Amino acid sequence: MYKIDLNCDLGESFGNYKLGMDEAVLPFMSSANVACGFHASDPVVMEKTVELAALNNVAVGAHPGFPDLQGFGRRNMVMTPAEIKAITIYQIGALQAFCKAKGLALQHVKPHGALYNMAAKDRKMADAIVEAILAVDPSLIMLAPVTSQMYASAADHGLSAAREVFADRAYEEDGSLVARGKEGAMITDAQVAAKRVVRMIKEGKVTAITGKDIDIQADSVCIHGDGPSAIAFAKTITEVLHQEGIEICCLADLK
Amino acid sequence: MYKIDLNCDLGESFGNYKLGMDEAVLPFMSSANVACGFHASDPVVMEKTVELAALNNVAVGAHPGFPDLQGFGRRNMVMTPAEIKAITIYQIGALQAFCKAKGLALQHVKPHGALYNMAAKDRKMADAIVEAILAVDPSLIMLAPVTSQMYASAADHGLSAAREVFADRAYEEDGSLVARGKEGAMITDAQVAAKRVVRMIKEGKVTAITGKDIDIQADSVCIHGDGPSAIAFAKTITEVLHQEGIEICCLADLK
Amino acid sequence: MYKIDLNCDLGESFGNYKLGMDEAVLPFMSSANVACGFHASDPVVMEKTVELAALNNVAVGAHPGFPDLQGFGRRNMVMTPAEIKAITIYQIGALQAFCKAKGLALQHVKPHGALYNMAAKDRKMADAIVEAILAVDPSLIMLAPVTSQMYASAADHGLSAAREVFADRAYEEDGSLVARGKEGAMITDAQVAAKRVVRMIKEGKVTAITGKDIDIQADSVCIHGDGPSAIAFAKTITEVLHQEGIEICCLADLK
Amino acid sequence: MYKIDLNCDLGESFGNYKLGMDEAVLPFMSSANVACGFHASDPVVMEKTVELAALNNVAVGAHPGFPDLQGFGRRNMVMTPAEIKAITIYQIGALQAFCKAKGLALQHVKPHGALYNMAAKDRKMADAIVEAILAVDPSLIMLAPVTSQMYASAADHGLSAAREVFADRAYEEDGSLVARGKEGAMITDAQVAAKRVVRMIKEGKVTAITGKDIDIQADSVCIHGDGPSAIAFAKTITEVLHQEGIEICCLADLK
Repeated sequence: MYKIDLNCDLGESFGNYKLGMDEAVLPFMSSANVACGFHASDPVVMEKTVELAALNNVAVGAHPGFPDLQGFGRRNMVMTPAEIKAITIYQIGALQAFCKAKGLALQHVKPHGALYNMAAKDRKMADAIVEAILAVDPSLIMLAPVTSQMYASAADHGLSAAREVFADRAYEEDGSLVARGKEGAMITDAQVAAKRVVRMIKEGKVTAITGKDIDIQADSVCIHGDGPSAIAFAKTITEVLHQEGIEICCLADLK
Repeated sequence: MYKIDLNCDLGESFGNYKLGMDEAVLPFMSSANVACGFHASDPVVMEKTVELAALNNVAVGAHPGFPDLQGFGRRNMVMTPAEIKAITIYQIGALQAFCKAKGLALQHVKPHGALYNMAAKDRKMADAIVEAILAVDPSLIMLAPVTSQMYASAADHGLSAAREVFADRAYEEDGSLVARGKEGAMITDAQVAAKRVVRMIKEGKVTAITGKDIDIQADSVCIHGDGPSAIAFAKTITEVLHQEGIEICCLADLK
Repeated sequence: MYKIDLNCDLGESFGNYKLGMDEAVLPFMSSANVACGFHASDPVVMEKTVELAALNNVAVGAHPGFPDLQGFGRRNMVMTPAEIKAITIYQIGALQAFCKAKGLALQHVKPHGALYNMAAKDRKMADAIVEAILAVDPSLIMLAPVTSQMYASAADHGLSAAREVFADRAYEEDGSLVARGKEGAMITDAQVAAKRVVRMIKEGKVTAITGKDIDIQADSVCIHGDGPSAIAFAKTITEVLHQEGIEICCLADLK
Repeated sequence: MYKIDLNCDLGESFGNYKLGMDEAVLPFMSSANVACGFHASDPVVMEKTVELAALNNVAVGAHPGFPDLQGFGRRNMVMTPAEIKAITIYQIGALQAFCKAKGLALQHVKPHGALYNMAAKDRKMADAIVEAILAVDPSLIMLAPVTSQMYASAADHGLSAAREVFADRAYEEDGSLVARGKEGAMITDAQVAAKRVVRMIKEGKVTAITGKDIDIQADSVCIHGDGPSAIAFAKTITEVLHQEGIEICCLADLK
């Protein structure tokens, strides 16, 4: 039987500032990437988000980012591998404490924004993140694109990694994402997105933006939880997956 | 045989800013209270400090503070118990991750500065801190004055607490510290301080600022690691303790 | 002819976080209290907010707060008068630079949240704020309740102050605001609020929560720009003021 | 008669953290680059630093940096020109307010660390900074290397710029600084440094690291105020300048 994890970035509110529709989107997910207070969130938000994930029976992952609240962790920063390792350990530990407080085990780690994008291409950054995860808890799973340096580093270090794909993004022929600015980069039709996801899972194929079919393996599909149509999008994806007999389960239950 | 723990606040540097003489003072200590990035420190400093403590065979504790780097956690802030619980969980978790990365177990928690002083008198704040510690790891020890609401709350919640005394501070008759501004509040003569500490340990007594002897129980003596005479002070205290046959050991080994 | 200023807190977004309905509420206002990056806002938001105020022909004031983004400046903090003076100078200067960049003169200063509430009752804090304003630009106007220590301090220091009243809040007999938690503290009916404002302006009277009429002088009415009914509320107030022949003009044009 | 400005980065302490030897180094300087609270400093430190500069009759400049206290503004960050313009306006304004409070006019602006280094090579960043300065006060002087995009942008925008050279750094043949890591990058002998500075001023020449003489024009010499030998270095430079009949005066008095 086919199985897939659905993951979503959550818990990105901060103090008086509300962001995202966590309550509405969580019921469709199997894994939540929870912000850890650097690019978004604060301790009160983290506690509530972990509680909300637990109520929805959704597995919790750490979503560490650059220390740049103003830029929401989306601005590239040049940090040394030692700095990256340290901020990753710190953020994983902080979130893990909230999991313990709710009697949950932390399931995975997915870097956020510019940290994710930079580490996907930079092996030293990728190694720093992988070493940080192993140092805190070697049973954690890293969530990363199969084409990334993060995935390669995890494989070399013996860290479990799950292959992430995106429901709402077009792919280049080399398996990388089409840059957001480009025509056709975003897939806005939920039915189209759902069919692409089904094909990735059942056939291991996706049609690149050039029209050519490429190989792709998916353990987890990233669904975006913000934007006006996020809920409808998540609903359509999960309905189509159910119709196609694909079971939605968290990363820890995939294997 | 008499035993006592010596604790010191450490790891309070931040980025380019250096503070304290951690390398010089650690050899005299048995427990280190390590700042967690809110009132002082950053992830890189935390990693180095835990490593340094491990090298010196000193037990590590979390030293959580208010989110006020500019005020070094020394300015009173009005936060709800829920906020205090959440910032305490967050900071303990962050430090615990660095301990795990070095193969150490976190030993204790001692709140910092204004958080310590306010929670000493405010039962709701004290409860929030105690609940945070229990939520993350009920085997942790809280370090607090025996006269404080923190100590009382720990007792009521079944959390282990160690009784902290101060080598360089005078006491009021009720067992509270003489306010820093007052004449005679600070004990600057290391020999005098050492003799007071010995008497606290062996007789359970200290002479209050009024001249009257009061009862006092000590599991741990706080030594300050900053200031020009800190090292000489620490050296004198430890020498006198050795001469008096009092063993210096960490909180976990006291019982 | 009767004249009144309408002021509103604006520019409280931060980075990726949006707050308030600045575009919708500005057309009804004559003065804007613009956040300065401590309790809310950032340099990009400040630049846009000043531009938006200029487009709407609304006078700009600085809205300095405590350095507490996570608490939105609403948590009491204990700072020395020297610290309060310095953070006030800093924030006024930062906003004034954006005004210069748009060819505007900064009109006024209104402290925010906990800083406003604490300084209303604490003369030393009030003096620190008044001295900060005078140091930067003695032609600035302070916006404060007539019953506050801020107003008294401004009078003693020769700083112009405008008397602020609230459209949506009930008053105690001594002219202070009824605490938010209390029954009847908030006036939610826009017509009722509008009539109270008209009476304050024309008769210098308002009915306190006890039912007794008290004296009140108003130079400026604070309208809240957030919440679902804020726009309708602002619309009703301005319509009733127009019907009653009361001119809405900024603080600088009152005298 | 020959004239030169000596500038130094100052006011880089933060809260409880002390950095630099401002009191000792200021008497040798004619211009001070004062940190503005983003990469270093806080409002209290800024107020004291401006006061100290005034006491020493040293002209004050703004030293804006990236919003990265942990990295001391030395880590490259990718920000849009609009963001760079806004953070520059904000920081200039904040410092200008402290100058006004002391009755001083702000003299110049010198970007700090990674912002300085990146804008030296990136015309869009340089333009953003120049536009920010012009927007706040077109009479301000920018301090920048003559070979930089900042200097070129200032020339194109009609902003006054002063040409900065470094006493303790070696030069490449193209007039750029030898990278810090390289052998011979730092000039540690104060007498050697002083003679190089004198030659830059009198002959408009300096010997590059390759041994070849190159043309160089100097309006201002940067002296570093930290490090154990900073004071001796500053003393030697100023003594040699006096012996050579070169007058030390601030940027505003150069022309």
